[in-house]
Amino acid sequence: MSSTEATTATTTVAAPTVVPVALGKRGYDILIGPGLIDGAGEELARRFPGSRYAIITDETVAEHHLDRLTGSMTDAGLDFTTVELTAGEGSKSFPVFESAIDCVLSARLERGDLLIALGGGVIGDLVGFVAGVVRRGMRFVQMPTTLLAQVDSSVGGKTGINTRHGKNLVGVFHQPSLVLADTSALDTLAPRDFRAGYAEVAKYGLIDDPAFFAWLEANWRDVFSGGPGRIEAIATACRAKAHVVKIDEKETGPRALLNLGHTFGHALEAVTHYDGTRLVHGEGVAIGMALAHEFSVHMNLCSPDDAARVKAHLEAVGLPTRLQDVPGGVGTAEELMQAIYQDKKVKRGRLTFILTRGVGKSFIADDVAPDVVKAFLGEKLRG
Amino acid sequence: MSSTEATTATTTVAAPTVVPVALGKRGYDILIGPGLIDGAGEELARRFPGSRYAIITDETVAEHHLDRLTGSMTDAGLDFTTVELTAGEGSKSFPVFESAIDCVLSARLERGDLLIALGGGVIGDLVGFVAGVVRRGMRFVQMPTTLLAQVDSSVGGKTGINTRHGKNLVGVFHQPSLVLADTSALDTLAPRDFRAGYAEVAKYGLIDDPAFFAWLEANWRDVFSGGPGRIEAIATACRAKAHVVKIDEKETGPRALLNLGHTFGHALEAVTHYDGTRLVHGEGVAIGMALAHEFSVHMNLCSPDDAARVKAHLEAVGLPTRLQDVPGGVGTAEELMQAIYQDKKVKRGRLTFILTRGVGKSFIADDVAPDVVKAFLGEKLRG
Repeated sequence: MSSTEATTATTTVAAPTVVPVALGKRGYDILIGPGLIDGAGEELARRFPGSRYAIITDETVAEHHLDRLTGSMTDAGLDFTTVELTAGEGSKSFPVFESAIDCVLSARLERGDLLIALGGGVIGDLVGFVAGVVRRGMRFVQMPTTLLAQVDSSVGGKTGINTRHGKNLVGVFHQPSLVLADTSALDTLAPRDFRAGYAEVAKYGLIDDPAFFAWLEANWRDVFSGGPGRIEAIATACRAKAHVVKIDEKETGPRALLNLGHTFGHALEAVTHYDGTRLVHGEGVAIGMALAHEFSVHMNLCSPDDAARVKAHLEAVGLPTRLQDVPGGVGTAEELMQAIYQDKKVKRGRLTFILTRGVGKSFIADDVAPDVVKAFLGEKLRG
Repeated sequence: MSSTEATTATTTVAAPTVVPVALGKRGYDILIGPGLIDGAGEELARRFPGSRYAIITDETVAEHHLDRLTGSMTDAGLDFTTVELTAGEGSKSFPVFESAIDCVLSARLERGDLLIALGGGVIGDLVGFVAGVVRRGMRFVQMPTTLLAQVDSSVGGKTGINTRHGKNLVGVFHQPSLVLADTSALDTLAPRDFRAGYAEVAKYGLIDDPAFFAWLEANWRDVFSGGPGRIEAIATACRAKAHVVKIDEKETGPRALLNLGHTFGHALEAVTHYDGTRLVHGEGVAIGMALAHEFSVHMNLCSPDDAARVKAHLEAVGLPTRLQDVPGGVGTAEELMQAIYQDKKVKRGRLTFILTRGVGKSFIADDVAPDVVKAFLGEKLRG
């Protein structure tokens, strides 16, 4: 843990796009735009007067963005502590969870103070969980620095860590008090990480917004290159997620639609041992979404043309779409089934899948026969 | 972890006293009466059809009550796993928290299944926290086997573990789905533990029910000996707690009244390193309540007669009431102040205390001057 003080030149910050998440007392705003980290100090001072902060980030993110944030907070006269964790999925673990909590308690933060999650999904999920349990719940701010985190994990209050039994099996629902999605932070992402996040953007089109999917097919180059389409795409994704979270905060119903591609995707992450050199989350989701469409074709629900169209778009942006695309292989159909069974979405042994009748026509199928899934996976593994 | 199967003779169970906790979707019943553990299987089968269970208990409680519970659940045809932890406050720790979670995940319990907390406050707080975070929240049943747990910790949804910074600093609010308070389980308690729980019973009189306090002064022997007064006292305490929890579930206001005696009490537990051979929670609360009344006299809020009356009753039942009653001492006033500052009830450095204008006239004072508290403690330490 270290405290950092720095100063930065004053930066002009364009008015951000605001997406409200309407959850009553637990409601909050998502601000989207370039340079938001540079203006964070002022925004925080205005929204949370008198509060103290602990910024929790990882080494990689710190290198790119921490000075901008601490400079802005220092300029705004805010009192804060900084905690730097090791980068990577390995930090979503009990030991790091415990040590982050210890840092927050050592800093004597109180219930009204705030944690700041500066980083990607790993930092957001971990810090949200820490905030959810320290003193039985303190406030926190998400400052997502990856595309994946900006359009998915920073919004909606799902927090958690991984265990040897699977991903995100331990956590809480705990909503942030503010999300600052600085779109210029995405310029420092590796192309592979940007693509992985893009899978979650495309997902919102595939769930129930065929016009958005068509728009992405036409404009994805602008989204990737950082043109005006990028903010538009992120805001559309956030609006879609905010809507679903509003109607089903704790995933007892329609929120499950956000898991399109995730049952297969999580299983692929599990069998590759969450080894990001082989497969990152968004890539698992891309393959999962392609498989969900193909499985829906297999079940005579979806036309082969729609499945081919989805696969073609994901491949056009450079995402993997086939089990064979995972370096080192993904094991047997039986191993994939075992991983699927440990998923949180299993109820009384019944498999819940998000299936589809075509682009933008997804639905929750909560009684899928395991044998049919296994046979389908066996077929796909044979190529 | 072990699975146990046993059979017991059918036991006649008297109709229990039912205290509902009215929290809407999160509402539940507290059942109070003798022999409830023997009838638990049937009660669970009726309330939670089709669910699976993990019973989490400690070695000491297991010896007295586990066979009764597993026998009853086996008779009712329920599917369950048993996890036995080491007895004692030490189990409210990160390592035990992690290992209990691992047991629950290994048993492949799903979100709709239930954990059963069979034991005292340590088991209840730990298991409630485990239930609150596994798969972002599963259901659980409290089966409190100590008086303290029956009248306090099993009701209201506060869960948590301890850290080196203090007690209960990490946890969640997570309501149980049912509380079964088997009053015959209290017959196996050591007298010291029964007395410690009694401190929390008396607390409800001291907060806002002077008639209940007077009733306890007249009937405490019946409560201790297991006469009909025992169920009456427990039910009155549970009703009082259920009412406070209903109006302020997450302790943003009046629920803080339940902390009467606890700011001093927690500090005493901290400075004695949670060493139960020196001081158990209820004893800390007893001393804390006596001090809260004396401090209120010191502040010219409460009459010396009322403070003396409170002290006399606590001493009559055999509870400690003075700092000098703690074996091995409690350190300096400065050390006690440091422990008080780490308490969750501190806001922006301001001390919140529950003070009183007399028996049954407690109130929240949220801006107590630290110097005055320190001077008062210094005086008390001098005898």
